[in-house]
Amino acid sequence: MKKIALLGHGVVGSGVMEILERNSALLERQAGEQVEAKYILDRRDFSALPYGDRFTTSFDAIREDPEVAVVVEALGGVEPAYGWARASLLAGKSFVTSNKELVAAKGDELLALAAEKGVHFLFEASVGGGIPVLQPLRESLTANHITGIAGILNGTTNFILTRMFQEGMAFADALALAQELGYAEQDPTADVGGFDACRKICILASIAFGSRFDPEKVPTRGITAISARDVACAARWGGAIKLIGRAGRAPDGRVDLEVAPMLVPNDCLLAGVGGVYNAVQVTGDMVGNTLFYGPGAGKLPTASAVVGDVVTALTQPANSRPVPWGPEKPELLRPQEESPARALLRVAGMDRQDLTAFFPDCQLLEPAEEGEEALVTAPSTQGELDAAQSAAEAAGARVLSRITVLEEMGARA
Amino acid sequence: MKKIALLGHGVVGSGVMEILERNSALLERQAGEQVEAKYILDRRDFSALPYGDRFTTSFDAIREDPEVAVVVEALGGVEPAYGWARASLLAGKSFVTSNKELVAAKGDELLALAAEKGVHFLFEASVGGGIPVLQPLRESLTANHITGIAGILNGTTNFILTRMFQEGMAFADALALAQELGYAEQDPTADVGGFDACRKICILASIAFGSRFDPEKVPTRGITAISARDVACAARWGGAIKLIGRAGRAPDGRVDLEVAPMLVPNDCLLAGVGGVYNAVQVTGDMVGNTLFYGPGAGKLPTASAVVGDVVTALTQPANSRPVPWGPEKPELLRPQEESPARALLRVAGMDRQDLTAFFPDCQLLEPAEEGEEALVTAPSTQGELDAAQSAAEAAGARVLSRITVLEEMGARA
Repeated sequence: MKKIALLGHGVVGSGVMEILERNSALLERQAGEQVEAKYILDRRDFSALPYGDRFTTSFDAIREDPEVAVVVEALGGVEPAYGWARASLLAGKSFVTSNKELVAAKGDELLALAAEKGVHFLFEASVGGGIPVLQPLRESLTANHITGIAGILNGTTNFILTRMFQEGMAFADALALAQELGYAEQDPTADVGGFDACRKICILASIAFGSRFDPEKVPTRGITAISARDVACAARWGGAIKLIGRAGRAPDGRVDLEVAPMLVPNDCLLAGVGGVYNAVQVTGDMVGNTLFYGPGAGKLPTASAVVGDVVTALTQPANSRPVPWGPEKPELLRPQEESPARALLRVAGMDRQDLTAFFPDCQLLEPAEEGEEALVTAPSTQGELDAAQSAAEAAGARVLSRITVLEEMGARA
Repeated sequence: MKKIALLGHGVVGSGVMEILERNSALLERQAGEQVEAKYILDRRDFSALPYGDRFTTSFDAIREDPEVAVVVEALGGVEPAYGWARASLLAGKSFVTSNKELVAAKGDELLALAAEKGVHFLFEASVGGGIPVLQPLRESLTANHITGIAGILNGTTNFILTRMFQEGMAFADALALAQELGYAEQDPTADVGGFDACRKICILASIAFGSRFDPEKVPTRGITAISARDVACAARWGGAIKLIGRAGRAPDGRVDLEVAPMLVPNDCLLAGVGGVYNAVQVTGDMVGNTLFYGPGAGKLPTASAVVGDVVTALTQPANSRPVPWGPEKPELLRPQEESPARALLRVAGMDRQDLTAFFPDCQLLEPAEEGEEALVTAPSTQGELDAAQSAAEAAGARVLSRITVLEEMGARA
C-alpha cells in the first residue's frame, strides 16, 4: 500500500479524501497498489469523521514516517506551506500542491530541491483547477517552443464578467451575487484585483519560458473598473471582456507578461468561456493554437488534479524530464510600454474628427452612445498608446476606459 | 545520441523530420541527448534532400539495428504498418504512430505486446492531430471514471459544415472548396462518411472504458445528407450542426457509441469550433467537463504530437502505468435503440396538430418554413424515436431530416 499525508482538510483537502475513498479501486489499478492517506494535518477537530483517527497536528510525525511517500499540501499561502515543502523534499518525499502562491513564489527553488533529492514537486492543480494543462504543456507539447499563452485563469472574475455580459448587471451587483453563491470571498481583492490570475500566468510563463517570473513585477489590472457600458461596447464590436493573463515571446526573445481585462473577439474560443470555467490557450511554434478548458476551481475538480499528480508521483520516476524552470532572469521581462497593443477606448469631451487626429486609423464604433465615443485604435505599442492618450487628455478628452484587445497569437481557420 | 527510424516520408513523416531539425536544441534539452532519425523508410526517391542519404527501403535494416530505440510510423493503413509495428516491438523497440486505422484495429494487441516487451506503443497523433488529449486522458485525469466523451474529430467535415453554417453554402460546393484547398481527398468517403471520426472515437472510448471497441460495430452516419436548410434550422434553434463522435457510459455500465451529425447548442464550446480545428470534450466523475482544442490535422501539428511521443518513449520507463485497454467485450456496447436521444426533425406533409400527436411535448420551431415543419422532440430513446417516426411516416409524414441533439454530459455554469 502507498501512503500519503495530507496537509490541510479544507475544501481541496476534503475533496482529496473524497476521491481517495470513492475511486479507490480505480486508483489502486492506476497506481498498482492501494493509495491511502495515513495522516491528515489540520488543527481543527474532525474526530467525528469516519477517518477522524488519522488527523494529527504534528508535521514532524509525517516527516519522520518513512512509509509516507507523498505529501499533499492544500493549505494556501506561502507559510507554513513553504517550510513543510522543503522539509518534505529534504526527507525524500514527493510534494504535491494546489497552492499557486507557493509555486509562484518558490517554485524554482522547490523544483531544484526536488531534482536534487530525486523526488517529485508537482502542482497541476495550482493553475486552472481541474484542467489538465501543466502536464500537457510540459510533456505533450515538448516538441514546441511556446510562443504565447493567454488564459481565463480566475473563475470568480469570469463569473462576474459573464453576468455583466449576459444580463447587463453592474460590477457591484455581480460581485455581490458571486459572494452570495460562494464563488467570491468576503474580501475579494485577490480575485477581482487580478492577483490570483497573475500568480497563475507567472507559473505558466515559467514553464513555457524556463525562468521564474515574479508576480510582483507583472503589470496587473483587475476588473473593478469595468462598467456595464464597457461590456456593452465590447459586445457591439463583436467581442467579450474577459480577465486575461497573457504571456508572449517577443521576436527578440524577451517576454511580454500582463494581467488585465481584455477585449476578446467572438471568433476566439476564450470569448465563449462562461461562468466559473477557466481556459488556457497555448500557442506553439509547431502545433499552432491549442486550448484547454474546464472547471477552474471547486472541491472535486481541484482534487482531481491533485490526485492525478499523486498517482504520477507514485508511479513515474522523478527527473526523467528536465527541471521545468530555473531562477528569475529579470532582463527577460519586456517593459510593458514596448509590448504591442490595440485598445478599445471610450472617450468623452472630444469629437470624432479630433479623436482621429490623436488616434489615426482607429475604428469608430457606430452608433456613438450619448455623450461619448468608442473606438478601437490601430495596432501600436502600449507606450505609444499612453502617449496618444495623454495628448488627447491634454486637449480636453476624458478617457472613460481603455481595454486592450487580445490579439490572435497564431493561425486559426 | 538517441536514434529513431521513420516509416514513411509523406506529410506527417516530413513534418517529423522538419521538427527534429528546426527544434533540435530544444529536443536535445528535453530528451537529455540529441534525437536523430537514422533511417527513413520510403520507396520514393528523396535522394536530393539534405538528409537523402538516410533513406532505405529495407525494414529489416531498421529492425536489426540495435541503435534504433524508437520506430515512428506515419504511413496510414493497417498493412504493412501492423506487421512492422509487431516486428519493431518484438525487437524491443518502442513504436510511435499517427495511424488511427492501425490503433483502432490492432491497439489492444500492440499495447499488450509492448507491455510484454517493456517498451512503449504510443499514438497521441492518431486522435485530434496536434491536440494533447490521449496523454491527459490517461494521466492527468487518472483519478476520474470517464463518463462521457464528445468530439469534433475530423477537420475536413468541420470545414465543410462551418462553410455551410457561415455562408449558407450547399454541401457539394463546400466539399468542392475543401478539395480545392487540399483539406479533402479526391475520394472523400472516409471523411464525409464519418469513418475517420469513428476510428478516433473508438480509440478514445477504448482508453476511457478499458476495452477495445470495433469501429465496424459503431453506428456511423456522415454529413452527406446535411442540407443548407438543416443548418439554417439549427441556427434558428440556437445551435450548430457538427459531426460528433460520442461515447458515454450508461448507468448500467454499458457504453453508448456513435458518430453522427448532431445539433450542438450554442452554449457548448464545441459549437464554436470552426474550420479544420478539432476539439474533444471529456467528462469525468470528479472533474466534470473538460475540453481539449487544437489543429486536428496538418503536417507540423500532427508531427508535434508524434515527436512529443518520441520524447516520452526516450525518457519515460514503459509500464509505469497500466495498459490502457484490453480486448473487445462486445456486450459492453449498448444497442443504439436503447440510447437516450432527442432530435431535430424537419417534416413535410403533416400539420402541426398531427405532428404533436406523434411527437408529444416536442418544441416546434417558429416560424415554420414554406411547406415543412421543424421540431425538437422531447427526451426519449433512439428506439422510441424510430417508432414514432415510422408511425408518423405511415400516416403520411415525410421526414426530411433527423438530427440528434448533443446533450450536456455534465454540470456547466
